[in-house]
Amino acid sequence: MSVSLGELAVRFGCELRGDPDLRVERVATLAGAGPTALAFLVNPKYRPLLGETRAGAVVLGAADAAGVARTVLIAPNPYATYARIASVLHPAPAAPPGVHATAWIAPLAQIDVNAHVGPHVSVGGGTRIGARAVIGPGCVIGDDVEIAEDVRLVARVVICPGTRIGPRTIVQPGAVIGGDGFGYAPERGAWVKVPQVGRVVIGADVEIGANTTIDRGAIDDTVIEDGVKLDNQIQIGHNVRIGAHSALAGCVGVSGSVTIGKRCQLGGAVGVAGHLTIADDVAVTGMTLVSHSITEPGVYSSGMPAVPAQEWRRAVARLHRLDRMAGQVAALEKKLNRKQDD
Amino acid sequence: MSVSLGELAVRFGCELRGDPDLRVERVATLAGAGPTALAFLVNPKYRPLLGETRAGAVVLGAADAAGVARTVLIAPNPYATYARIASVLHPAPAAPPGVHATAWIAPLAQIDVNAHVGPHVSVGGGTRIGARAVIGPGCVIGDDVEIAEDVRLVARVVICPGTRIGPRTIVQPGAVIGGDGFGYAPERGAWVKVPQVGRVVIGADVEIGANTTIDRGAIDDTVIEDGVKLDNQIQIGHNVRIGAHSALAGCVGVSGSVTIGKRCQLGGAVGVAGHLTIADDVAVTGMTLVSHSITEPGVYSSGMPAVPAQEWRRAVARLHRLDRMAGQVAALEKKLNRKQDD
Amino acid sequence: MSVSLGELAVRFGCELRGDPDLRVERVATLAGAGPTALAFLVNPKYRPLLGETRAGAVVLGAADAAGVARTVLIAPNPYATYARIASVLHPAPAAPPGVHATAWIAPLAQIDVNAHVGPHVSVGGGTRIGARAVIGPGCVIGDDVEIAEDVRLVARVVICPGTRIGPRTIVQPGAVIGGDGFGYAPERGAWVKVPQVGRVVIGADVEIGANTTIDRGAIDDTVIEDGVKLDNQIQIGHNVRIGAHSALAGCVGVSGSVTIGKRCQLGGAVGVAGHLTIADDVAVTGMTLVSHSITEPGVYSSGMPAVPAQEWRRAVARLHRLDRMAGQVAALEKKLNRKQDD
Repeated sequence: MSVSLGELAVRFGCELRGDPDLRVERVATLAGAGPTALAFLVNPKYRPLLGETRAGAVVLGAADAAGVARTVLIAPNPYATYARIASVLHPAPAAPPGVHATAWIAPLAQIDVNAHVGPHVSVGGGTRIGARAVIGPGCVIGDDVEIAEDVRLVARVVICPGTRIGPRTIVQPGAVIGGDGFGYAPERGAWVKVPQVGRVVIGADVEIGANTTIDRGAIDDTVIEDGVKLDNQIQIGHNVRIGAHSALAGCVGVSGSVTIGKRCQLGGAVGVAGHLTIADDVAVTGMTLVSHSITEPGVYSSGMPAVPAQEWRRAVARLHRLDRMAGQVAALEKKLNRKQDD
Repeated sequence: MSVSLGELAVRFGCELRGDPDLRVERVATLAGAGPTALAFLVNPKYRPLLGETRAGAVVLGAADAAGVARTVLIAPNPYATYARIASVLHPAPAAPPGVHATAWIAPLAQIDVNAHVGPHVSVGGGTRIGARAVIGPGCVIGDDVEIAEDVRLVARVVICPGTRIGPRTIVQPGAVIGGDGFGYAPERGAWVKVPQVGRVVIGADVEIGANTTIDRGAIDDTVIEDGVKLDNQIQIGHNVRIGAHSALAGCVGVSGSVTIGKRCQLGGAVGVAGHLTIADDVAVTGMTLVSHSITEPGVYSSGMPAVPAQEWRRAVARLHRLDRMAGQVAALEKKLNRKQDD
Repeated sequence: MSVSLGELAVRFGCELRGDPDLRVERVATLAGAGPTALAFLVNPKYRPLLGETRAGAVVLGAADAAGVARTVLIAPNPYATYARIASVLHPAPAAPPGVHATAWIAPLAQIDVNAHVGPHVSVGGGTRIGARAVIGPGCVIGDDVEIAEDVRLVARVVICPGTRIGPRTIVQPGAVIGGDGFGYAPERGAWVKVPQVGRVVIGADVEIGANTTIDRGAIDDTVIEDGVKLDNQIQIGHNVRIGAHSALAGCVGVSGSVTIGKRCQLGGAVGVAGHLTIADDVAVTGMTLVSHSITEPGVYSSGMPAVPAQEWRRAVARLHRLDRMAGQVAALEKKLNRKQDD
């Protein structure tokens, strides 16, 4: 696949400085690019590489383009423009329409003639798979699932019965959508399983990472709204709702019945305790424990930065002696006040 | 499936106030229920909904039932009774006995005639699968495994060679039981793999969550006792023993050779360091690091609650200056004592 | 499989005290061993068992062997020697060369005649699988993958297109190698997916745990060097590089573009923030957040040890009142100095 810079400039609304007939074939980093590659500059730390790069063209912002004597595509949001060009140069691998000979499709499933169903896939009864959907090798799709058009389940994804998946959503390998939530009633020192009868309902343009798990609702549904991005190894409990365009980094754990607002960003391995509400536009830094609802937009933290182990042991010991220190300070205040009264 | 309230009352030992011939078909929340649905009330926060709900019947405790003029089923443990009724109204999907045409069964495997083996399953030699067991699509079962009656492997579960699974245990999709533990001998700056020759032995009525992993023992076995409930994405290291009816929430990590007592509850993302022992009836709150053995029942914590990021940075800085503050306080005490001596 | 002690002594360079014709068949713990089992002693805590064990032979160091009147194999590194003997007594299960009838192999894949491809495996076009490689049941291998000789993918592993895996590397079940990294360009409150076009390149003698995920590079590659050991449920972001012989325990999360040095050891559930560098020979204890680059070898920590919950709540409250305490101390100092000036 090669594309001319002129075509890219027109298609993505960039200002082109350079030869519109020059063609690029791939993307590359500024440091690694050759003459048929397109690179991008967003992080100012890499600006010095602009002089050295062998890239055929560079996507960048107007400010970075000033005084640069090479072929550039100037865009208001150069990273988003780079992303779009990269998806033209590196399209997802073609998946021919049709059902693989080794797949097993239940009698009453409806699979669009333009959908692709790969090797060793199984599809349950009553399930509908939309146009141009790609169901990669080894996926297991239960009964009564609805998969909209242009969905891509990369490989070995499990979609449990009743799940809804909106258009263009991508699910990376190993994800499990709709497993039973963690619901048990305590009884005489043991547990009685509470049947999990809700569904998982996923919107459009969502991406779900490798080995991420999303539990079905206990009674009502678990809901992932449009445009949400979930990284790998995330756990989403039953009856969670995640607002549109929120992005959760790897290893996040969200307990049951949590509501997360729109456009939130949760850093890696953040944990959210059960039944909380997080407002729109909240950011939480990595490894923070959200133990209370958050009602105001802003940045929240409790991740403790690493220090040399010896220093850390001392800090922990001091922390646990703070009661004592507070007592000393109070005693000093009292003593000093008494002296003043003398 | 519909059931009369009279039948439910008799079967589950409830007091029925209302028409025994009224039938319910499904469960629902108090807010979402229609006239053919059964709801429940446990959390006092939802008590106001009792007046409004359109539910055909509500399961609740005697105290909550006082003065309520609607159809109710009164139970000593309403949540457990709800769970049992829900499993009658919403039974696990039927799985017809027999081996799917796409499954592969090794010559010497023994599969009960009433077991179900789904599409694309492989079963190793010497393995026995008990009556009414359900082996869902895409499961991989190694050699010499024993799966008792009524076990349910939902889909795409891996059971490594030698594993034992007790009656009625449920394993959610993506779980891996019996992978090699993390055992290496250091030698000249590199690692020599220590063969992991123990098994995983799982009791009766256990549930194992989606994408949870349980390592086989290094020499002796890893043991999960009866009634244990493991949520999703949990990691259990080699030679761990988890006592009966303990419940571990999502993303917990248990290092090798840990012994956890009976009826323990570990919150989400708790970590337990290697070779520790946790007594019976211990609860640990979410994101706590258990770095020493716990010998007494009780609740333990070290999860740090989120605060605004700026406030958090200041707290961390203060924590690391505590040595200095302790020095100031000591100096003040000394000075003041000296003045008093004057 | 049984082996004489004489043969073991010669093969692994041990000093044998005892009958060279005595044969052992299996490994066992000191406590559990019978007369045909070989045990080992490394941890001094188990030394008292030396007198009682029924083991046919014990592998141990010279110091522990002094004055012991039983059959022993003395080795300079007894744990590594034990590991090697165990792999002789308990070899990986045989996997006959050939492609299983239920596997699906794309036309242009090249599979060595001595490789084993198990049931329900799919292999993409342009992929090469080396001699004696074992591809276990349910694995999905994409296009243009290179798998070297003696690699073992235990079961249900996903290897995405373009991945390289070096000789003798072992991948436990459920791992996903080469899923898309978490890359999105923000645009008007939503996200544009950034195509992930790099590969994952894995060296020789690596081991990757169950349900671990390693993302492909965004542009350049994600690299796991020779001899690295990754435990279960680890998440490795795009463009990470992990230096030779580093070992990461379960549930570790490494954000994108992190470089970890050689021979590092990361404890369970450690998190590493994005774009950092960790020097060679760094150890990080469990549940620590690495939020800044580490330039010096040594041990680093920030994992907070569990204490009784009530005590913990008090410590957290005190931590958040440290500003106030610092103010009190400063005021006391000022007051006292003023008094002295009087």
